Amino acid sequence: MIPAAEVRRLRSLRDKRCRQELGLFVVEGEKVVAELLSAGYRFEAIYATAAWQGERTAEMTEDEMGRASHFPKPSPVLAVGRIRSAPLPARALEQGLTLALDGVQDPGNVGTLLRIADWFALDRVLLSPGCADLHSAKVIQASMGSFARVSVHACDLVETLASAHVPILGCLLEGTDIHSFAAPRDAVIVIGSEGGGLSDEIRRLVTQPVTVPRYGGAESLNAAIAAAIVCDNVRRTRVKPAGA
Amino acid sequence: MIPAAEVRRLRSLRDKRCRQELGLFVVEGEKVVAELLSAGYRFEAIYATAAWQGERTAEMTEDEMGRASHFPKPSPVLAVGRIRSAPLPARALEQGLTLALDGVQDPGNVGTLLRIADWFALDRVLLSPGCADLHSAKVIQASMGSFARVSVHACDLVETLASAHVPILGCLLEGTDIHSFAAPRDAVIVIGSEGGGLSDEIRRLVTQPVTVPRYGGAESLNAAIAAAIVCDNVRRTRVKPAGA
Repeated sequence: MIPAAEVRRLRSLRDKRCRQELGLFVVEGEKVVAELLSAGYRFEAIYATAAWQGERTAEMTEDEMGRASHFPKPSPVLAVGRIRSAPLPARALEQGLTLALDGVQDPGNVGTLLRIADWFALDRVLLSPGCADLHSAKVIQASMGSFARVSVHACDLVETLASAHVPILGCLLEGTDIHSFAAPRDAVIVIGSEGGGLSDEIRRLVTQPVTVPRYGGAESLNAAIAAAIVCDNVRRTRVKPAGA
Repeated sequence: MIPAAEVRRLRSLRDKRCRQELGLFVVEGEKVVAELLSAGYRFEAIYATAAWQGERTAEMTEDEMGRASHFPKPSPVLAVGRIRSAPLPARALEQGLTLALDGVQDPGNVGTLLRIADWFALDRVLLSPGCADLHSAKVIQASMGSFARVSVHACDLVETLASAHVPILGCLLEGTDIHSFAAPRDAVIVIGSEGGGLSDEIRRLVTQPVTVPRYGGAESLNAAIAAAIVCDNVRRTRVKPAGA
């Protein structure tokens, strides 16, 4: 038996403001909870009905789950995590590869970009204030477990990049062909929003414009696809770190 | 004034079966209609309210549009196109690059893959019977105008590939690294579904397994992203056609 106030509190976590006040977020669904557990993520609490096969910290009836859940059809498991907002260490960007998202509002795209950062073993992801909230259920779900493996920092992106001493690669129409580009060992790759591309402020901070060569008629590629192609080419051509 | 039967017929085109019976499909929304028009697509009819700035073949009141539309909030324009199912010419696959989709059910993914095929100027796209319907509104919308520029054939993919005399590239975990692979001039690239990858039947027809190198922890990339990275590498390393 879960107290009614606790059920209401769980349900309130669908709102970003409540998440920020409580410092907690929630994920629901057997697939996403299992993905995060298998990636080693440590939840604060796992509420589950009898139908859930995995570990739990509290038993719930289906009725309670129905009231706590954000889903029209509740899943057998709902897990609560703590929001850990690690500040970006000074000069962190000078080591390794960083993916910086500038105003990527669609939570599915942010999740997909975390998955890409994870696949290509980027060292960190930065989110500008205009990006979808990292702790929304859709971002975490679309990341397919990468949420637990990638180091993500929400920050003032303009200020952070303005003081970074590292090449800033931006995908622009008139840049160096990424096929013939030799990527530096340490770099930031900035990706803009689906509709608007890079904001003017971020575009001015790009020190190395790069372009995915176009062969046909499409006017653009979507942000996640362009990011994936740039990451693939950066990994292919990057100067190897000493000793690697 | 549009006859009520015509309004009902337009509304019926949301169903695949009705589209097939009538040989017609419908797209709605200022952005998608404008994209297709600017790509040179020739509609059978364009219904528009006074709010639409572009060309039209019939005027509609907002009330009529509300009854014809599939949207909760109707747009000012609704265009009807004819379904042209061009049979794949014999030996067509032996010339150029083909993208073959094996059971890609999500219409947004099919649309995104058409956009990728367009960007990389692939010569044609094949859809297996398990793919989302090419003429559904979501596929066309997600293609961002590429629907009008890419040659697409729905076909029995197993039969078509079994009789093709051309390398068949499949993205598998244990294939040749696409970074060090020299792509042939003519090839088929097969892409499986998000959940299940390639079907067993198609997998057996792959003559050249290829792999996108993985550096980090993510278990997979989504189908459209893997396809885009493979296409980018194929374009980068492909043997140039004689005279090009």
